[in-house]
Amino acid sequence: MSEDTTYFYAPEVVSTGFLPPEESAHAIRVLRLKEGDRILVTDGKGFLYEAVILSADSKGTAVAIERTVETFERTRPAVHLGIAPTKSIDRIEWMLEKLIEIGLDRISLICTDHTVRRHVNVERLQKIMISAMKQSRKLVTTEILWHDTLKDFLTTLPDNARRYIAHCDESGVRQELREAFVRGEDSVFLIGPEGDFSPKEVEAAKASGFVPVMLGKERLRTETAGLYVGFLHHLYN
Amino acid sequence: MSEDTTYFYAPEVVSTGFLPPEESAHAIRVLRLKEGDRILVTDGKGFLYEAVILSADSKGTAVAIERTVETFERTRPAVHLGIAPTKSIDRIEWMLEKLIEIGLDRISLICTDHTVRRHVNVERLQKIMISAMKQSRKLVTTEILWHDTLKDFLTTLPDNARRYIAHCDESGVRQELREAFVRGEDSVFLIGPEGDFSPKEVEAAKASGFVPVMLGKERLRTETAGLYVGFLHHLYN
Repeated sequence: MSEDTTYFYAPEVVSTGFLPPEESAHAIRVLRLKEGDRILVTDGKGFLYEAVILSADSKGTAVAIERTVETFERTRPAVHLGIAPTKSIDRIEWMLEKLIEIGLDRISLICTDHTVRRHVNVERLQKIMISAMKQSRKLVTTEILWHDTLKDFLTTLPDNARRYIAHCDESGVRQELREAFVRGEDSVFLIGPEGDFSPKEVEAAKASGFVPVMLGKERLRTETAGLYVGFLHHLYN
Repeated sequence: MSEDTTYFYAPEVVSTGFLPPEESAHAIRVLRLKEGDRILVTDGKGFLYEAVILSADSKGTAVAIERTVETFERTRPAVHLGIAPTKSIDRIEWMLEKLIEIGLDRISLICTDHTVRRHVNVERLQKIMISAMKQSRKLVTTEILWHDTLKDFLTTLPDNARRYIAHCDESGVRQELREAFVRGEDSVFLIGPEGDFSPKEVEAAKASGFVPVMLGKERLRTETAGLYVGFLHHLYN
């Protein structure tokens, strides 16, 4: 459970040879690194490089990549979470951090019929996600998408992934997720807002191949349901 | 995923016939309830009662219990988490809220050899736990304990529970928790601080019957590890 964040994130380091401004400032101003110092850099695309600092510029530090230290190898199927943002966005932020530690490939924030929050600062979430990636020593960034409607979200899904929708409406047939879940395949999980999906949305999701599921007998908040499916995907794969 | 917190917590309601001050203030000042209004009250010991307000006093509302609406029935084995408090306590608070939603019987906060935070406001955590209990419509409170040392914690454990310690030291033999875990039995999970348990502590835990485990290949923060074991216990039981 150690906390060591001494690697840098530079998505374009291979083509440009520079750290972006924020990472440069951290390296030069905060850590006081100098020309000739060796650092670890990830491109967020699966590679961790050892590099040497050529010019210690806090606005754009030039580096030379010396070797590949580590390459990301996918060990489990992909997991994609579609979720309605909560009223207080800090709940989603916290959930996101935890899901990135455990493993999350893509998150779609969806403005559903009953969603109160109609806008999200995606840039801020991206920063939190990169910090979580670095903290947990992951080499791949998590993709984040915003959708104005559930219908919009449904058009973006890959064909080959299993689809599960967690909703509260007790009138329809729902299986327990831990029984319905198919191991060894890519999964898309759909979690509704406080106030649940509208019946129309549940129907649209079902028409798109989503299997209606329950997450145990407990009453879970939106972000807890997000954690639940992420941990389930991790534990069952 | 609905958020409805309209029940009251009054641990002594059966013997005293009163709501405690905080709950009284909420009922009378915030919700403006009056004499004759009907409310739901839990004692946190497994019972949900319907009661009628006899006197609308914001410092101590008298109620008469009319009937038992619901009784808690244990559906899975008990789960006890022993964890070192994190440097920022809000991480533990958030974890606690989520674990109570999913189910947690007891939490022990342990000041281990490498724990930076040597004091915790247990009263504040208790308030958060009660709020989480009400929010998720649970009828049983989660017990919270503080221990000055790991040794102290080890003396408090029931004999019949399975014991698992998650630590990072790669020199010893550790099984994957999801393989080592025994379903259908009470579990105690031990999670170390940022900086891990000391070798002496790991030895003491092992001597007390704790099985050393890993929580997947990921690097998890302390509070994420706490979530991991709580969700695992829920999903596997």
